[in-house]
Amino acid sequence: MKLATFRRKNGEVSVGILSGEMVADLSPHLDELGGSLRSIIAAGALDKVASVDVESLQSYPLDQVELLPVIPDPGKILCIGINYATHVKETGRDMPVHPMVFTRFADSQVGHNQPIVRPFVSHKLDFEGELAVVIGKTARHVKRENALDYVAGYSCYNDGSVRDYQKHTIQFVPGKNFPQTGGFGPSLVTKDEIPDPQVLHLVTRLNGEVMQETDTSDMIFDVGALIEYCSTFTELAPGDVIVSGTTGGVGAFREPPVWMKPGDVVEIEISGIGILRNTIIDEER
Amino acid sequence: MKLATFRRKNGEVSVGILSGEMVADLSPHLDELGGSLRSIIAAGALDKVASVDVESLQSYPLDQVELLPVIPDPGKILCIGINYATHVKETGRDMPVHPMVFTRFADSQVGHNQPIVRPFVSHKLDFEGELAVVIGKTARHVKRENALDYVAGYSCYNDGSVRDYQKHTIQFVPGKNFPQTGGFGPSLVTKDEIPDPQVLHLVTRLNGEVMQETDTSDMIFDVGALIEYCSTFTELAPGDVIVSGTTGGVGAFREPPVWMKPGDVVEIEISGIGILRNTIIDEER
Repeated sequence: MKLATFRRKNGEVSVGILSGEMVADLSPHLDELGGSLRSIIAAGALDKVASVDVESLQSYPLDQVELLPVIPDPGKILCIGINYATHVKETGRDMPVHPMVFTRFADSQVGHNQPIVRPFVSHKLDFEGELAVVIGKTARHVKRENALDYVAGYSCYNDGSVRDYQKHTIQFVPGKNFPQTGGFGPSLVTKDEIPDPQVLHLVTRLNGEVMQETDTSDMIFDVGALIEYCSTFTELAPGDVIVSGTTGGVGAFREPPVWMKPGDVVEIEISGIGILRNTIIDEER
Repeated sequence: MKLATFRRKNGEVSVGILSGEMVADLSPHLDELGGSLRSIIAAGALDKVASVDVESLQSYPLDQVELLPVIPDPGKILCIGINYATHVKETGRDMPVHPMVFTRFADSQVGHNQPIVRPFVSHKLDFEGELAVVIGKTARHVKRENALDYVAGYSCYNDGSVRDYQKHTIQFVPGKNFPQTGGFGPSLVTKDEIPDPQVLHLVTRLNGEVMQETDTSDMIFDVGALIEYCSTFTELAPGDVIVSGTTGGVGAFREPPVWMKPGDVVEIEISGIGILRNTIIDEER
């Protein structure tokens, strides 16, 4: 099942079931299920959603609604740096002993087809194609062996980065939190469709050209290990997101560097999950 | 005016005006003012609070209520590293050109007199006495010159740190986000009482012994500069918190290192603001 958060033409935000280029609107059931995708997950109501008769729902073509970030309001967004062997090589860093964790705020996110905004204070806007893991239930001191029990599903993430701000100091937070720089979508693919998150193929394209390509088997810390580590130092809650790191090929390490500019189209495609597509626009002054 | 968030004996959370060892309960006015201190600030209703007749309110001795973090639910908590000249010297780092920014999650906070929890996975629990700045209105692309217009007030903060997790990688987030490790209180002192945040005296005491002592004039980036920088990469909202960095004397850099252990009492005192006091307990397994 593929679940999306979207805004109807009348401005109302709803949750829907994605099927091809159509979204079936769950709004008649949202009072019962919880008002948002986050609260549906928190209520353990994904099974109830699966039992809704899709034929009974109003459906809209995707180009008549606005997809929002899959979870627009995660309590925690934990991003992992340097988690693919090829990317470690590219950055010249040592192989890590622990996952590298930084954070994004929810307002740094955009949904599928919403524009990614290049800030006027910096044009060093880069892409990072990543697998997003959405937490399904409260997790603390979880062990890797059963960590996938705590997953609701997966999505594509573009951990858009403003590289000079990222490198102002050793802490990445400023470069990772400009408003509307991180793509998250198109939908939550529930984990029953992704029995093994380490066998996925991930491709990042910029204007159609492949910039990053990897199998998630190349992760240094797999999804289970990331949940174990993160749940050691913080409590994970339903709807929280772990953005599992990017592979080689980012714009910053190319010769010459490649920065995303207005009009560019960036896509993150993950097998079994879908394509997250965003066009770059300039921040309004 | 000193405003606190607190829990009454009946379990209800309220907002009150602190005066000495008493708190006057604003709950009869909260529907009108907004339900929480964050929403009072967001509604621009601090002036309305100031006009409430305190004599008409039920007052409680502080030892009969439980103070919570001043803002229990900030949208963003931005912490500044390495922002005092003496602390830069202690860590052996170069003088910074930009503020170093990392984040805490709201559930890593505790209020005045609530216990700080030493995690069982690490005993390297350290203190960091800091001035907390609470944002009063939405701020983006603010200039340093008028940045204090965006401040609601100030408080004490203990940016409690689990040092080995902080140093697992170059990103500080894991060591700064263990549940109930960061003290925030006792109250919000509105900015009319603190015309200049750079002339305050800050002392950290562990079991009565002075461990850190500084004037806020020693900050490398002053409060205005921090608001300018943070508002460049993210939008600040009412109730957001900037924790402005610590000075020399932290436990990690002592010979031998000093770690906080169960029963220890840690105090952060800032002139004109008050004393934040917490006792350390062990995490329950």
